[in-house]
Amino acid sequence: MAKNIFYAQSGGVTAVINASACGVIETARANRRFGKVYAGKNGIIGALREELIDTSKESRSDIAALRHTPSGAFGSCRYKLKSIEESRAQYERLIDVFKAHEIGYFFYNGGGDSQDTAYKVSQLSKIMDYPITCIGIPKTVDNDLPLTDCCPGFGSVAKYVAVSTREAGLDVASMAESSTRVFVLEVMGRHAGWIAAAGGLAKEKRDDPPHIILFPEIAFNKAQFLKKVKEVVTKVGFCVIVASEGAQYADGRFVADAGQKDAFGHTQLGGVAPTLVDMIKSRHGYKCHWSVADYLQRAARHIASATDVEQAYAMGKAAVDFAADGMNAVMPIIVRKKNKPYRWSIGNAPLSKVANMERKMPRSYITRDGFGITGKAREYLSPLIIGEEPPPYRNGLPQYVRLRNELIKKKLQPFSI
Amino acid sequence: MAKNIFYAQSGGVTAVINASACGVIETARANRRFGKVYAGKNGIIGALREELIDTSKESRSDIAALRHTPSGAFGSCRYKLKSIEESRAQYERLIDVFKAHEIGYFFYNGGGDSQDTAYKVSQLSKIMDYPITCIGIPKTVDNDLPLTDCCPGFGSVAKYVAVSTREAGLDVASMAESSTRVFVLEVMGRHAGWIAAAGGLAKEKRDDPPHIILFPEIAFNKAQFLKKVKEVVTKVGFCVIVASEGAQYADGRFVADAGQKDAFGHTQLGGVAPTLVDMIKSRHGYKCHWSVADYLQRAARHIASATDVEQAYAMGKAAVDFAADGMNAVMPIIVRKKNKPYRWSIGNAPLSKVANMERKMPRSYITRDGFGITGKAREYLSPLIIGEEPPPYRNGLPQYVRLRNELIKKKLQPFSI
Repeated sequence: MAKNIFYAQSGGVTAVINASACGVIETARANRRFGKVYAGKNGIIGALREELIDTSKESRSDIAALRHTPSGAFGSCRYKLKSIEESRAQYERLIDVFKAHEIGYFFYNGGGDSQDTAYKVSQLSKIMDYPITCIGIPKTVDNDLPLTDCCPGFGSVAKYVAVSTREAGLDVASMAESSTRVFVLEVMGRHAGWIAAAGGLAKEKRDDPPHIILFPEIAFNKAQFLKKVKEVVTKVGFCVIVASEGAQYADGRFVADAGQKDAFGHTQLGGVAPTLVDMIKSRHGYKCHWSVADYLQRAARHIASATDVEQAYAMGKAAVDFAADGMNAVMPIIVRKKNKPYRWSIGNAPLSKVANMERKMPRSYITRDGFGITGKAREYLSPLIIGEEPPPYRNGLPQYVRLRNELIKKKLQPFSI
Repeated sequence: MAKNIFYAQSGGVTAVINASACGVIETARANRRFGKVYAGKNGIIGALREELIDTSKESRSDIAALRHTPSGAFGSCRYKLKSIEESRAQYERLIDVFKAHEIGYFFYNGGGDSQDTAYKVSQLSKIMDYPITCIGIPKTVDNDLPLTDCCPGFGSVAKYVAVSTREAGLDVASMAESSTRVFVLEVMGRHAGWIAAAGGLAKEKRDDPPHIILFPEIAFNKAQFLKKVKEVVTKVGFCVIVASEGAQYADGRFVADAGQKDAFGHTQLGGVAPTLVDMIKSRHGYKCHWSVADYLQRAARHIASATDVEQAYAMGKAAVDFAADGMNAVMPIIVRKKNKPYRWSIGNAPLSKVANMERKMPRSYITRDGFGITGKAREYLSPLIIGEEPPPYRNGLPQYVRLRNELIKKKLQPFSI
């Protein structure tokens, strides 16, 4: 009998992770080799709790609408399984749930941590002698997965940041003579500057915004930064800055770290922009405005990159095709064939090599002074934001689908996580 | 001989103020009664400095592209002329510049302060016996001008905020089980809650985001707010908050006011969101995310309301038509004829009645508990965000026009402002 598929969304969601889900479900529905697609309610937590969403209850049109709906339609989670030694009971529980519901395929849609989990499940299924085909589906706005040329989710954030930088740049230019001189846009990317770099695509001519980009990869030097701000304002009349939330000093302290920690003792970031503005105002006295894009940037399906949507869908589809072809413990990847015109194809990478590796911006993508992107970066980034695929609108608002998300009947005892 | 037109943009710019400029220039070009349209470089400052942009040097297609270009294409300013008694020299300078360049029409595109200036110029032209036809063109994202049903610029910000709230709301819903519980979006509107109210349009069903809206019109009560946050998280699983930058305590202190002042001694706002997040984290320990939209919201031409674009253009066109009809010291306004389907027409209001009045949200637009909008508000707001009129894209980015902005030759002595 055809085995069922388990699909789960993991980590921070994106504007296009549901397009991958759409690719998985539509492709699996069209292939009789597969049974039903069960989605984890809130990601892997759903598997542990045996909370499985029966996607066969969803209409064809609702599944199709996933392609234009941001966020994680089945719920996601931040929940990393530890090593098999530390969390063996959890891995065994996963296998038990898979057994109970005749699941033969495990598709995990997430970043590096998730690919690590998928890899471990594939290892354990061998040991426990219950064969599971494990396929990773790449997803991360941070664009920091190795081996794949880019990650679904990134192109749309990149487009959002480039568009917003261009629009806000025009605004500041209009106001600079008698009011605002400096605008700071804070964007995501705690460890890698890919998203901040995308702001650089807004620039067409030399003095266009953004004038300064701050990357986590380049140690922040306050004196040099303030000098540069002044130079730009003097020359151009105003200064637009795109700052990564991960911008940090040479000693690794985050620029945004004013020493505050959250209830769990984690350093709370998200304040690079106001911190920079404080510096600029006290040194130069310029009137400043600042914006923190936060979730808006990764949820902004309304301005998603059509290229990104297409790739996200293709990765979901490829996962199912790989499984149908008998492949295991792999992740589909995007292979760049050509820059102009942009051509790409689908390759694959073993999960063992994807897990827990972070890809930072190459130094050659950042200008010598550390404040901008090079032609090489532009060549890499440009194709990823191409094309628009707007959602349908009703009454002026995007119509995003909300699924029924019906759970299947549990067969096992409760399991506490 | 046909007199020339002077047109200037004033105050904070919007996604559609250039659509009004487009309406002025295209309409004036088509009517032989008018000479050239001169635009003030950086608003009224350009008139005082005799820096007049000759828009006849711009191509027809570049002028047409103003309709889809955000910000102020000729530069705007924050510069309010004082009373005639205090600043008589400045008003006289304006008249001198108008005389020198055979300007017979003064079109001032701005908010309440600007309409006040336009009114004063109209008064002075009588006293100085140099006839100038003064027409105001409404513009403000704050939607706080009296007499007009709404203000060009508002509908597009409203749409941006409603769309962003819906998108970020889906994101938080996906993450809430194991991560972020609360999201705060900070929006503009220092004195009136119109923009924050627009976030309420994202809600379709009772438990949809936004769950809490904070208006400047409703005194902020910390205890009640924190109680409501907890209630929502307990019931819905997460809580989305749209907060006006002008949210304030009963005594008038801004919630965002941590006592910081800028170089000029003005209270610096823009930190409601992080302030609220601090409160929530210390009391409830929820993981929170926050966003400050700032300039992004008013520059976001890519998601502008087609209704707003159309009205902005119509206001510019009407200003020229009014002048052609011999009207003076008036401002075109938007008159609502019908809600469903939305119908509106163009009326006019005397500048003397528009100047320096602020229109706040009626109490009947805000729910009894002060945290949401009523059906009445929804009825008012809904039509204003309808329709999309995206800009053209090239290489994945909106193509916004940048004009040549050639200045005409000066004829007068310099004037220091």
